[in-house]
Amino acid sequence: MEFSSKLLENAVNEMSQLPGIGKRTALRLVLHMLRQPKEHTNALTEALSTMRHQVKFCKSCNNISDVELCEICSNPNRNEEIICVVEDIRDVMAIENTSSFKGLYHVLGGKISPMDGIGPHDLNIETLVNKVKEGKVKELIFALSSTMEGDTTNFYIYRQIQDYNVFTSTIARGISVGDELEYADEITLGRSIVNRIPFENSLKI
Amino acid sequence: MEFSSKLLENAVNEMSQLPGIGKRTALRLVLHMLRQPKEHTNALTEALSTMRHQVKFCKSCNNISDVELCEICSNPNRNEEIICVVEDIRDVMAIENTSSFKGLYHVLGGKISPMDGIGPHDLNIETLVNKVKEGKVKELIFALSSTMEGDTTNFYIYRQIQDYNVFTSTIARGISVGDELEYADEITLGRSIVNRIPFENSLKI
Repeated sequence: MEFSSKLLENAVNEMSQLPGIGKRTALRLVLHMLRQPKEHTNALTEALSTMRHQVKFCKSCNNISDVELCEICSNPNRNEEIICVVEDIRDVMAIENTSSFKGLYHVLGGKISPMDGIGPHDLNIETLVNKVKEGKVKELIFALSSTMEGDTTNFYIYRQIQDYNVFTSTIARGISVGDELEYADEITLGRSIVNRIPFENSLKI
Repeated sequence: MEFSSKLLENAVNEMSQLPGIGKRTALRLVLHMLRQPKEHTNALTEALSTMRHQVKFCKSCNNISDVELCEICSNPNRNEEIICVVEDIRDVMAIENTSSFKGLYHVLGGKISPMDGIGPHDLNIETLVNKVKEGKVKELIFALSSTMEGDTTNFYIYRQIQDYNVFTSTIARGISVGDELEYADEITLGRSIVNRIPFENSLKI
């Protein structure tokens, strides 16, 4: 792609560094900015820059926060004996949207993935293990992706804490609500039979 | 979507103002920035801001440029008697990539579209008409989209200049190279028969 302006080329190149944004999309976005008043671009760059430099991570759960201890961790109405372990703050947002969990979270910041060079020490696993060692936690809920990497991470953490008095659970895997059985994959269907639940429990939600 | 941080929310909101970027995509992009070193965000915001404030539009053709007269307009090897009229600088880049045109361009900055409130006076039509009036232009090639708005714009400009001694042409519409006839739409196929060309001409490219 040949550009008639170095400034434009630079902006497109930087924009196309973002995941899922190719050169063409980047050009479309940048030309859109040029058609809009300058204030729009100012607002965008200002918001991104402030966010990147000033955002904090909760010192307890590692969730993104504007203060030292995030709103969830500092909420006295939440049960601090149950911790839900997730990969990412998007998972926190997704679970919060369901309004079905009133405990705290612990954001790992990823999952163990040797292929991508991510080992246990790149994640916030130590702080989680320390919380368990302190003895205040009664239950850990693993809510990681159901992939090889997710399972590896679950198991790694499980090994670190199995000598302590803590109950560990994992979110249920099974047929999605509203799905037809015939379209479900074999592994999910198989697991949903092995891990069947008392019928009365299914009436609760 | 509930955010645990106002700064994050702000950044996501600004990002999702861009066309084709929804809230979820914006969140994904912003979280990606958070995982990258701060320098990456600095480079992006700096490039966008400099581009938005310092980029110039060529005073002759309205193409984006870093200098007053763009590289194409100031190139003595280009034929300034032929002007290709396009909507957008992306069209200039697309035509330049084909290396099949050695004249100059004129970027209108859009097309007449009453539905979107864009009239002739919102576009760079007057400067184009003035160029024709000065008598240096021998041919105008209309290379606008083949839509109602494109055709309206072509016709509007044509009416403004028809009394001057200038030849007007429009880019060929027809079956794309490599396309099967049976999949072509009727209008395109019909036009390609009406506007058929001598066979020898098709051997040239």
